[in-house]
Amino acid sequence: MENREKRRSGIFVSSVSPRIDCGRFPVKRAVNDVLRVTADVMKPGHDLLSVSLKIKHESEKEWNELDMEPDGNDGWTAEFKLTQLGTYDYTVCAWTDTYATLLRNMQKWHASGEDIHQDSIQLIEFATEWTRDDAQALPHLEKLANALSAHDFETLLEEASSPEFTPLVRARQPRTDLVEYGKTLQVVVDDRRAVFSSWYELFPRSQSTQKGKHGTFRDVVSRLDDISRMGFDVLYLTPIHPIGVTARRGKNNSLPASSDDVGSPWAIGNEYGGHKSVDPNLGTLDDFKNLVHEAERRGIRVALDLAFQCSPDHPYVKEHPSWFFHRPDGSIRYAENPPKKYPDIYPFNFDAPDWKDLWNELASVVEFWIAAGVKVFRVDNPHTKPFAFWEWLIKKVKKRHHDVIFLSEAFTRPKVMYTLAKLGFTQSYTYFTWKNYDYEIKEYFTELSSAEVTEFFRPMLFTNTPDILTPVLQNGGRPAFKMRAVLAATLSPLWGIYSGYELVENQAKPGTEEYMDSEKYQIKQRDWDAPGNIKQFISTLNRIRAENSCLQTLGHLKFLEVDNPNLLFYTRWSDDGVSRLFIAVNINPYERHSGFVEMPVKEMGLSESAPYTVRDLLTGERYVWRGVKNFISLTPDLRPAHILEVEK
Amino acid sequence: MENREKRRSGIFVSSVSPRIDCGRFPVKRAVNDVLRVTADVMKPGHDLLSVSLKIKHESEKEWNELDMEPDGNDGWTAEFKLTQLGTYDYTVCAWTDTYATLLRNMQKWHASGEDIHQDSIQLIEFATEWTRDDAQALPHLEKLANALSAHDFETLLEEASSPEFTPLVRARQPRTDLVEYGKTLQVVVDDRRAVFSSWYELFPRSQSTQKGKHGTFRDVVSRLDDISRMGFDVLYLTPIHPIGVTARRGKNNSLPASSDDVGSPWAIGNEYGGHKSVDPNLGTLDDFKNLVHEAERRGIRVALDLAFQCSPDHPYVKEHPSWFFHRPDGSIRYAENPPKKYPDIYPFNFDAPDWKDLWNELASVVEFWIAAGVKVFRVDNPHTKPFAFWEWLIKKVKKRHHDVIFLSEAFTRPKVMYTLAKLGFTQSYTYFTWKNYDYEIKEYFTELSSAEVTEFFRPMLFTNTPDILTPVLQNGGRPAFKMRAVLAATLSPLWGIYSGYELVENQAKPGTEEYMDSEKYQIKQRDWDAPGNIKQFISTLNRIRAENSCLQTLGHLKFLEVDNPNLLFYTRWSDDGVSRLFIAVNINPYERHSGFVEMPVKEMGLSESAPYTVRDLLTGERYVWRGVKNFISLTPDLRPAHILEVEK
Repeated sequence: MENREKRRSGIFVSSVSPRIDCGRFPVKRAVNDVLRVTADVMKPGHDLLSVSLKIKHESEKEWNELDMEPDGNDGWTAEFKLTQLGTYDYTVCAWTDTYATLLRNMQKWHASGEDIHQDSIQLIEFATEWTRDDAQALPHLEKLANALSAHDFETLLEEASSPEFTPLVRARQPRTDLVEYGKTLQVVVDDRRAVFSSWYELFPRSQSTQKGKHGTFRDVVSRLDDISRMGFDVLYLTPIHPIGVTARRGKNNSLPASSDDVGSPWAIGNEYGGHKSVDPNLGTLDDFKNLVHEAERRGIRVALDLAFQCSPDHPYVKEHPSWFFHRPDGSIRYAENPPKKYPDIYPFNFDAPDWKDLWNELASVVEFWIAAGVKVFRVDNPHTKPFAFWEWLIKKVKKRHHDVIFLSEAFTRPKVMYTLAKLGFTQSYTYFTWKNYDYEIKEYFTELSSAEVTEFFRPMLFTNTPDILTPVLQNGGRPAFKMRAVLAATLSPLWGIYSGYELVENQAKPGTEEYMDSEKYQIKQRDWDAPGNIKQFISTLNRIRAENSCLQTLGHLKFLEVDNPNLLFYTRWSDDGVSRLFIAVNINPYERHSGFVEMPVKEMGLSESAPYTVRDLLTGERYVWRGVKNFISLTPDLRPAHILEVEK
Repeated sequence: MENREKRRSGIFVSSVSPRIDCGRFPVKRAVNDVLRVTADVMKPGHDLLSVSLKIKHESEKEWNELDMEPDGNDGWTAEFKLTQLGTYDYTVCAWTDTYATLLRNMQKWHASGEDIHQDSIQLIEFATEWTRDDAQALPHLEKLANALSAHDFETLLEEASSPEFTPLVRARQPRTDLVEYGKTLQVVVDDRRAVFSSWYELFPRSQSTQKGKHGTFRDVVSRLDDISRMGFDVLYLTPIHPIGVTARRGKNNSLPASSDDVGSPWAIGNEYGGHKSVDPNLGTLDDFKNLVHEAERRGIRVALDLAFQCSPDHPYVKEHPSWFFHRPDGSIRYAENPPKKYPDIYPFNFDAPDWKDLWNELASVVEFWIAAGVKVFRVDNPHTKPFAFWEWLIKKVKKRHHDVIFLSEAFTRPKVMYTLAKLGFTQSYTYFTWKNYDYEIKEYFTELSSAEVTEFFRPMLFTNTPDILTPVLQNGGRPAFKMRAVLAATLSPLWGIYSGYELVENQAKPGTEEYMDSEKYQIKQRDWDAPGNIKQFISTLNRIRAENSCLQTLGHLKFLEVDNPNLLFYTRWSDDGVSRLFIAVNINPYERHSGFVEMPVKEMGLSESAPYTVRDLLTGERYVWRGVKNFISLTPDLRPAHILEVEK
């Protein structure tokens, strides 16, 4: 604890916020966000205080100091615009504003008719002592002395409190009882895309237009315009590395594979290389770099999959057998979760005797792809690797590359998911796909939108993934696909689809959430303009997201009353409150549903009885509404949702 | 932060609770309370964990370790009975339970028909390595080896998981990935009276039965039986020290005082001594010790007033002028809060150059009175002295005298009051006297009863003080006095009255909350059995408090529905839920009020339709109630409240 010398200060600084877990983890913001820092600062008695926010970017040596302003009940606040990517440190300090306190007391004494001659001497002595080297102060000090000689205390007080003189003394007076908040807190400032982006996931090998042919990076380039027209700005590729042969899985996860099976791209590594190589069937590293370049030209960032595991054929297995787990007989253990076994996958032993070499090698994998132009990584199953590894890796990488984004693909226990986000993951998968009823959507997204959670957790809402085709999509078809897309695109600034969603692909392996003929185990080719697709609908959603800043920020989500549990009605608004939308969704894809929604007319500054117009951004249609309760009727597929703005 | 070597452990310990302000302050408990500690403990993957609560009393060198039990969603819990007064440290540690994990996996493999020969070898090697020095383990290890030879895996698993053998391995297996929670937390264990007691405040000089005579400690002894019969167990004396003459205040705070005025006892110090002396008019130090002894015989503890300030005549002023504030001309500054002036009081300068001497001298004052038998101190205006001083003083004193109680008499801003409590004050005055309406009583006491606040703040509810005679008492008379007594005695386990309350004294200086002819400035003599007194009513309240443990603990207060804002209806219950009362109060002292209260019959396990009997502990009367809504009618003075228990 503090030593007694230090504790003599009568000032107590506490509850500095924002802060996660007592400052153990940094909070998160995007570049050009304003950080609002609050603190409780108290001193017994009646002295006036100066309170400062101290903040510095990791590139800076010296603290910047900003005055904090009192906002009642011993709370103090300051705001700071985060203009640089990377990490800022911040803390709070306070000291007695001796000059202002003296002055305030003298003003009170004088007003109550007391003689302030003695106090005036003290004030002038104090001011002189701390400003004597300042030429600017001299004329003021002279005026003060003259006023004292003339016993003209009115003039003396006026001069002493003048806006020209006061700051000179306040800036120079000693901070004899300076107290610092015991801790330095941190905020990580990310690229704007960390908070707001729309993802499109595909298997590169499925992108050839020639029937039966293995797709290449060049084929993916041909898809870019289509993806861009749908409004996506991150293109996430499933693993692009050479694929293992040993225990390779066949179509629909069958064993053994036949000779023409392409295998799961998550079984990484074969004779052609491992995590730093590309599958020769996809092309060359230069082809990949060309894809990154072509994507960037269209405003699309390429995201790679970081799956830190090996096929038995990975070069690491021979070069670094110590990095894996071993049986008593010396053989390498494949992945297992009793009674399940995964003989095509060797997990790393992150606690191996030479773990430092392993960790450094994995960090070099990330650096390798960053050098190839990649700035976004989707991390496969981070919850099966040590927390400490991720904290170390992400810090190390982001220290050099502030704009890199790590998306945590962890579907596990709630606190583990939150902890991964706190440790450094920029974005996180969520339970969205399994939240279908009104009460569970409300409960979950109210939690994710809370001030506490948005400090560290940025929810990425994928409608589907190669592993997840939920019953509502399997059974609800196109109406369900549209409905879930609206929810994903409007409940969080981060959403994504796995390719095929736009084609309403919904054939599952019976009784599972797995796709029938899953691309995980075979090449799949599509007519990307097949009839019945919802590409236009998706484009509209992404356009609405691009045009309304309330859909581009975390939090600011409130569920409003509606008298039918098949309907959801919620509002999103921007930090400044200027952008605001009201979203109504029929979450039952099988039936038309109607009901009365409740508009917060008071809060909106609308009349409680006069009519107002709302416009549906999905269709352009206008409705004249009046007062709080208004009728809506939503028809699956045809009109699955309203995204409404109130017209001024 | 932790170094990287340490961070290799896959285990993450966080959110250890109870804890105040990230562990900056200790939480509070009373002796023999059970401390329930919770933590979040996680390890990615599927390994089983061992989690321990480590706890030790300040008198102990070694930690005690208790197993924590998982209670879902990565939460862990342990309970520890605090049998000693003083401070305990506690923290949490965790490590992988390697043996249990191996065993669990083998059981799963075996159940799914896999061969576990290799795993069995590993298990036996592991168990042998860590128990080979333990004679108890030998026969078990032999059985395991035999089962392995016989390929009898059923027997092997049974033996390996036997309750005789498992603990031997678990206790000895290495904690290779042990992780400690980064912080040591503290709990201060106080005397039971810190949580539950009833205070009676008096001016010793007013206790003479001879008209016009200055009361003495012997006169106070004569009052003890009366005070004890009313059920009070702490007798708080206003300052007993010599009183200053300079600028002494006369009757009703008039200036100048006349020669026969006795002065305010808070203007401490004259030629007869200061904070370590007794006013000769009250008797000798031995007389005081005799009073303490006589009080203790009746189960009453004597509380002294700690008012750390001096009259201009205090010996400190001559001996240690440096301990005070000075004007530019060298004269000592009296207390002032512009435009108010207190020329009879010199405040200490706690930041004086020789502040260490001052602080030590003030600590010696406390030690002096502890040596005279005092264990309870009511601290005057602690919020006008530095936080650091109180934290230092209380820690220093309680280190030697665990059972000493400090009551903070701070009426100031909410966060300052809370901070004083966090810094170490055992009990705290509250805003109770100024909470009169239903909504403000509900809001304030819901906050004070919350889990967060009861960790550090123990509210002392005085109905009145020598400074506070509120309008409701001035105007409401005897009905108001009874009503406010019920509230004070049942809203917190700590309550008190300032003498005269039992006599319904309610003459104020017009337009103020000050008493007319206040005892602060003159001797006041009463007929302690004057007609119209409410002594019997107060005795009954204190008897009910003594007989019902739900009124002896902090928290466990809930306001229930009642359809009349003039009525309050609330319930209190004990930690174990066995003791439970329902309290209805008519907070309007001028009118009879009736209404329907809502009983939580479901929660009570009562039928929603069948009748049940409630008994009023104030009158002994019984009422037959039925279901949730029940009618009450409360008449000021006659029946101001119900204190109801549900009869089984």
